[in-house]
Amino acid sequence: MNIAFDQQSIAATMETIGKAARAASAALGRCSSDQRNAALRQTAAEIRAQTGAILVANSKDMGAAGARELSSAMLDRLALDEERIEAMACGLETVSELPDPLGQVLAAWERPNGLKIQRVSVPLGVIGIIYESRPNVTADAAGLCLKSGNAVILRGGSESFRSSQAIYRCIVAGLSAAGIDPAAVQMVPTKDREAVGYLLSSMAEYLDVVIPRGGKSLIKRVQDEARIPVIGHLEGICHVYLHESANLEMAKDIVLNAKMRRTGICGAAETLLVDRDAAERLLPVIVDALVDAGCEVRGDDEVQKLVANVVAATEEDWSTEYLDAIISIRVVDDIRQAMEHIGYYGSGHTECIVTDDIDAATRFFADVDSAILLHNASTQFADGGEFGMGAEIGIATGRIHARGPVGAEQLTSYKYIVRGSGQTRP
Amino acid sequence: MNIAFDQQSIAATMETIGKAARAASAALGRCSSDQRNAALRQTAAEIRAQTGAILVANSKDMGAAGARELSSAMLDRLALDEERIEAMACGLETVSELPDPLGQVLAAWERPNGLKIQRVSVPLGVIGIIYESRPNVTADAAGLCLKSGNAVILRGGSESFRSSQAIYRCIVAGLSAAGIDPAAVQMVPTKDREAVGYLLSSMAEYLDVVIPRGGKSLIKRVQDEARIPVIGHLEGICHVYLHESANLEMAKDIVLNAKMRRTGICGAAETLLVDRDAAERLLPVIVDALVDAGCEVRGDDEVQKLVANVVAATEEDWSTEYLDAIISIRVVDDIRQAMEHIGYYGSGHTECIVTDDIDAATRFFADVDSAILLHNASTQFADGGEFGMGAEIGIATGRIHARGPVGAEQLTSYKYIVRGSGQTRP
Repeated sequence: MNIAFDQQSIAATMETIGKAARAASAALGRCSSDQRNAALRQTAAEIRAQTGAILVANSKDMGAAGARELSSAMLDRLALDEERIEAMACGLETVSELPDPLGQVLAAWERPNGLKIQRVSVPLGVIGIIYESRPNVTADAAGLCLKSGNAVILRGGSESFRSSQAIYRCIVAGLSAAGIDPAAVQMVPTKDREAVGYLLSSMAEYLDVVIPRGGKSLIKRVQDEARIPVIGHLEGICHVYLHESANLEMAKDIVLNAKMRRTGICGAAETLLVDRDAAERLLPVIVDALVDAGCEVRGDDEVQKLVANVVAATEEDWSTEYLDAIISIRVVDDIRQAMEHIGYYGSGHTECIVTDDIDAATRFFADVDSAILLHNASTQFADGGEFGMGAEIGIATGRIHARGPVGAEQLTSYKYIVRGSGQTRP
Repeated sequence: MNIAFDQQSIAATMETIGKAARAASAALGRCSSDQRNAALRQTAAEIRAQTGAILVANSKDMGAAGARELSSAMLDRLALDEERIEAMACGLETVSELPDPLGQVLAAWERPNGLKIQRVSVPLGVIGIIYESRPNVTADAAGLCLKSGNAVILRGGSESFRSSQAIYRCIVAGLSAAGIDPAAVQMVPTKDREAVGYLLSSMAEYLDVVIPRGGKSLIKRVQDEARIPVIGHLEGICHVYLHESANLEMAKDIVLNAKMRRTGICGAAETLLVDRDAAERLLPVIVDALVDAGCEVRGDDEVQKLVANVVAATEEDWSTEYLDAIISIRVVDDIRQAMEHIGYYGSGHTECIVTDDIDAATRFFADVDSAILLHNASTQFADGGEFGMGAEIGIATGRIHARGPVGAEQLTSYKYIVRGSGQTRP
């Protein structure tokens, strides 16, 4: 990527990228599954071969980030090591082994007049992906788009620019080795934020959908500025609700895992709701375990009365995605109030009910309106890999097109194929 | 609807409608299939009972439209008679008899760790529908939304305001009779265009998706202004392509039907492409038949040389949706050039190949990127009813969420339900 930015405007650059993506998309849609999978494997091999170069690029990014005093969470997202690079390569290989999401007959039926109708999966076309500091999104997103026959325009965060470029070079090599037009995966070659503005506002002709991956401010910018469809990933204010019949040991294990396994992922629990009738039985043990694990516990008045080591939760806590070792706990009257709380404060991402009462679980499943609902399992299972999708671009909290984990299958559209024998419409 | 507009701003009115829709949506999602179907049947009965009142309202609309000298096509779309009113009622009954699109298990699998995952269909939430002069869209759209458990905010054209209001009163009566909150279907009670602007730009909190039904200028306005997802219905520049192996009689029947059965619908053919090797065999008979049927024929040089009664087609013709008894005809080298023409000038709606060569049809199906592709059948089958969906809100030409006919099933989203036995994520 040696485009000279001083010599042409961002608009011209983005137009060039858009046109090339549209053209590559048409060709990619005609590539065989074998060819797309070969590109994924070749990219994985190239990433392994270029581990050293990727680490050098990453250390430059880390140095620049350190100088800017970024948060430790951000530095952690930015950092690559041999293990993370190997995980990227493995991820691409896993995706290459998934069934082809294209050309699937999603439905087929015959009409009384003899018309045979099929609904067949096809790529979306060209996908724009805007992400922040995680350089591995470069490989993950490109891999899923390639698997699903979509051309993609990647725009990574400025902090990870060098790392992402190094990974991107491996993708270009992988595409070329498999005989696929490298323009099928392109990366915006400038850190200028105006490029994002142009992509969102002026590229409807070239882009079929844009997928933002990142924090609130990025998502808000995309939703405000986009003139193209967005597959939205809002924050994950995930709840664990302990129904009065919850088993103590199971409740403790699930709460600890949902909150503390990894605190920085969107499926981490942020709020614990407990039935009043079970609060005294459940909370002391569970809060102790959380505190022992290093978690800060914020609770309402009732929680504070029941257990020690709890600071007062404010109204703001109920709508905060901590992404950290902090949990808010509220005692509720019953399942109805728990579901009201989730409906009011939740983000529609992932919620869990712990109960031995199957009717309560059924009611929770029916009445809570979130992308993922779990009964007696940790919210940290909210993940495309854990769902068996091989990988994901994120968890969609919107209701249009895809909801929940967005894997290769979710990056497809369909068309109708109708076979007749001369039918005309009466 | 007796809201006094002089006394409150459009914003306040729209906020009230949005809040009520969101609340009604939650309740509607919990209504049984029987209750939703009862509301559809009750609305149908009320429409039949109120035929006289609807006709009176419509005659006022027609009078006002006549005074404004609207086109005959627009007057035809606006006009209601007993037959059209009966068709509306029948449409609602047909929709009531369709299978419930909600609560369907779309996919189900089990993970190695014992988690049982189901993908289950749910309503989208609240749908905004903006349409133009056809008053019957009021009943059709409300019916499909109700069937699929979605609250809906309807905004009809100003020409059909009185007719739509009369139909809307029947819907309110039908909802009430079935014990459903009438706010599940609301109609913007003002003709003011600012209401549309507010709906598109400021109601993301209340609306999950907006569906425009109408001409180019409406669609463009919606795409430009919408801050909420749009299920798009662009124009239908539909093609019939006669491959060299096309059977003459079948080709003639299909072209005549595709163009002339109804010229004003989006699935009507606008351009005919003919392989050079078959042009002399096919065109004279087909053009004669078109002209006899009252169709104006515009052709390229080769067409003009082959047959009489053809005026010269201009570049503009190839990208024009006539919605009238006019057809443009071009001679092409081969299937490749035909597909290039469709890709360049088409709108991604519906295309037909007439051929006895199954390989040509297979290639056409694989390489043409439109919502509906037909082999040896009229493009006028591009219709939800003809597809067996009972009814449709239109044909989506976008690639996100729904593509092709949008029926009740396409107005759903899904959620994931995960049943565990205490699993935590390693």
